[in-house]
Amino acid sequence: MAALGIHVVEDAPLNNLAWDLVHQLLVELDEFRVEAVESDAPGIIVDFGVDVLGSLGAGIALAEVCMSGLCEIDIVPGDVGGVGWPVLSVKTDNPVEACLLSQYAGWQISQGKYFAMGSGPMRAVAAKELLFEKLDYREQGYGVVGVLESSKLPTKEVVEYIAQACQVDPQQVALLVAPTSSIAGNLQVVARSVETAMHKLHELGFDAYRVDSAHGWAPISPVAADDLTGIGRTNDAILYGGRVTLWVTGDDESIAEIGPKVPSSSSDAFGKPFLQIFEEAGRDFYKIDPHLFSPAEIVFQNTETGTVHHFGGIHHDVLRESFGI
Amino acid sequence: MAALGIHVVEDAPLNNLAWDLVHQLLVELDEFRVEAVESDAPGIIVDFGVDVLGSLGAGIALAEVCMSGLCEIDIVPGDVGGVGWPVLSVKTDNPVEACLLSQYAGWQISQGKYFAMGSGPMRAVAAKELLFEKLDYREQGYGVVGVLESSKLPTKEVVEYIAQACQVDPQQVALLVAPTSSIAGNLQVVARSVETAMHKLHELGFDAYRVDSAHGWAPISPVAADDLTGIGRTNDAILYGGRVTLWVTGDDESIAEIGPKVPSSSSDAFGKPFLQIFEEAGRDFYKIDPHLFSPAEIVFQNTETGTVHHFGGIHHDVLRESFGI
Amino acid sequence: MAALGIHVVEDAPLNNLAWDLVHQLLVELDEFRVEAVESDAPGIIVDFGVDVLGSLGAGIALAEVCMSGLCEIDIVPGDVGGVGWPVLSVKTDNPVEACLLSQYAGWQISQGKYFAMGSGPMRAVAAKELLFEKLDYREQGYGVVGVLESSKLPTKEVVEYIAQACQVDPQQVALLVAPTSSIAGNLQVVARSVETAMHKLHELGFDAYRVDSAHGWAPISPVAADDLTGIGRTNDAILYGGRVTLWVTGDDESIAEIGPKVPSSSSDAFGKPFLQIFEEAGRDFYKIDPHLFSPAEIVFQNTETGTVHHFGGIHHDVLRESFGI
Repeated sequence: MAALGIHVVEDAPLNNLAWDLVHQLLVELDEFRVEAVESDAPGIIVDFGVDVLGSLGAGIALAEVCMSGLCEIDIVPGDVGGVGWPVLSVKTDNPVEACLLSQYAGWQISQGKYFAMGSGPMRAVAAKELLFEKLDYREQGYGVVGVLESSKLPTKEVVEYIAQACQVDPQQVALLVAPTSSIAGNLQVVARSVETAMHKLHELGFDAYRVDSAHGWAPISPVAADDLTGIGRTNDAILYGGRVTLWVTGDDESIAEIGPKVPSSSSDAFGKPFLQIFEEAGRDFYKIDPHLFSPAEIVFQNTETGTVHHFGGIHHDVLRESFGI
Repeated sequence: MAALGIHVVEDAPLNNLAWDLVHQLLVELDEFRVEAVESDAPGIIVDFGVDVLGSLGAGIALAEVCMSGLCEIDIVPGDVGGVGWPVLSVKTDNPVEACLLSQYAGWQISQGKYFAMGSGPMRAVAAKELLFEKLDYREQGYGVVGVLESSKLPTKEVVEYIAQACQVDPQQVALLVAPTSSIAGNLQVVARSVETAMHKLHELGFDAYRVDSAHGWAPISPVAADDLTGIGRTNDAILYGGRVTLWVTGDDESIAEIGPKVPSSSSDAFGKPFLQIFEEAGRDFYKIDPHLFSPAEIVFQNTETGTVHHFGGIHHDVLRESFGI
Repeated sequence: MAALGIHVVEDAPLNNLAWDLVHQLLVELDEFRVEAVESDAPGIIVDFGVDVLGSLGAGIALAEVCMSGLCEIDIVPGDVGGVGWPVLSVKTDNPVEACLLSQYAGWQISQGKYFAMGSGPMRAVAAKELLFEKLDYREQGYGVVGVLESSKLPTKEVVEYIAQACQVDPQQVALLVAPTSSIAGNLQVVARSVETAMHKLHELGFDAYRVDSAHGWAPISPVAADDLTGIGRTNDAILYGGRVTLWVTGDDESIAEIGPKVPSSSSDAFGKPFLQIFEEAGRDFYKIDPHLFSPAEIVFQNTETGTVHHFGGIHHDVLRESFGI
């Protein structure tokens, strides 16, 4: 198993941070227009957009929990192709912990008819992904916290599956759920500007621990009527509108070599709205070039050598097409 | 009376939120350069700009109280016609409550020689406006909170008039006062980008409850030497520089029909600084097209259908003329 | 001595504010990636970048302490020459206290081989600069707080020298230290957009107390490999990218007269990266026109007369050259 031989961190710092945030949320559910789910499923389940409306505040809270709170997320004034447009800004001084060990949606939860993209620090306990072996991190503790991007609320079986994978009691599982095409669910995906840069770098063999701090932003895609269109738009927000600055250490050669492959424009698939790329790939994610999934623009600031590396750029024409502006 | 038949909400949630904010302010008056007024007028009166200097922080606090705290207000870097310029950003997940039931300056307080534009949640208790009947909302509770846009501090008679209209003891009235041409007073008007959009929609017959969340911004107009110029400039900030995004539900047809009438450019009066329009109307507000009073640009994001509707645009040339840049 | 005859403020309000902030920092050192220094030097010494990595959060905290907490500092999305770039925004309703009496790096600490640019409110206790006489301010109290821009940690002798200058026990001295070419040290210099405007005005004979509030911003220069390049880049961030708005009172004539001398472009040295100017001056700071040290652009909003005065403008070409974009 992937987890074999990984250094295990006791007292689960990432899940503890997220667990505390979830419990703060539980006393202000109404303000966020979200709901604690009452069903036969054990643990804590909070609906952020399946049967509830949600809110911008809920979307920010969802993204913060997903990043184990190691971030600062704000909605700020911006512009898409000359139209005033809200932009989501994400900062972190812990990009590996917040983005790769927590936020990356690397755990596909598939139980019977239920499907969700699983993210949040529960991944670091289950450690089902090769990423945790490569980054040599796994944690163990009391409560585990996950974010489910799904149009359905998790069943008893889903919670039990997650609990088992994390080797905790189902009562110790907290899950926040939102469909892509909900206000909060849409926002938590657009919050992944830095995460997609970090993951692309990791996949390209760049040592993610060289990234000390990060600031990224992307226009908030309009909430879609259906999840498929939502996946298209949220991807486009990052692929064509995401701008990321990373403060890194180490040599410049590796950045000069790997850097050009980081922005989405490095992919042959680049240039059309994501939904169109998806259709042309016969609706098969695995036929899409995985190099596509990264921000439009990336700047590396090497704090050791002082060198700045800049790759890619934003493409508002595709954003306008995708967003229907 | 307008209030007849309206559903009355006990324990005044909006006024309670504002009342708490006012009491937090009372312990940090010096930091905000504002003053609790000592006079024969009963209740709590805080001077935000009549005989005091005020501050940017006071302006933000004033706007927050005016919106019953259901908002997030920030000053952020921006641009007016190529010149670096501070911009006021306003977000709310409760646009009806924050903007229409609280912030809209719909209560003209006229007592003897005293005149003020009254806003804040006290309006929802007095419920003197047709708006409360249409939105079917009125609240009753302990303390009532209002913001007075006026160059004078309210007299005993003014406070008693407000108390009577709200059916509370004068001691239960809290009033924050600032002239348009003061730092805080100027800022609280520029904080009305979303409010003007909401009110215009309401006046056009659009169901305001269809708006779930909103983000708007406008450049902070320079504080004027006199209130008339101040009214001109603060209006211009919104009319020619205000950009608003609304997250809405419901059908697209009604948005497509009403939307084009929302931005200020839908008015025949549009295109000149407000003060000039006012002079040309013989200094008679009622001769000015009421459709003028709305943001320069508005974007509707329909979260049910996924459709985006965009109307209007900003006009920095008029802003530069109005602001004297 | 400069301090003779100056009005002395007991209970050191500025240092008290900073002292409290430092003690809040002491319980979250790990989160900021900074360290309390254990050496034979007395008092509190916190390393923000000499032997530690630091963080963006640490840089903001460092700048806040340096301004005695009388400010709001944020990293926001921006642009340098078409490239997405983080920008540092600084607001204050107390520009004299925050910038001139605290933040200005006017105390050169030189003890044996040790050198640091000293800033922070400890300056207002030592009052070694003519500025304190001119602004008629000096404070006395328990703890004194300073920020040292230096590549070395202060020795026992340095702390004792500062303590003596401030007439306090060495145990009552708190020093935060960071080199220009560190994440936090770099950021605290870029936080000086408003300060450089205030200081230039003061030097030009403008009454600094006429400035009631201020908002400034500048792009965050990339951390340099060495301090000299760091000084060049951080200066360039302000000189060619700094934009400042001041809310002022008083007559317009003095602004019209002094204003054109405020932006960096008023200097003959203007137009090249600072490091190049420095080299051409034979690496002698005193041969550089002191009028160079101010933001690229300045806007005065006279809140009494309503007049707006605008001088200077940003120069992204020099920024791109300096930052190596």
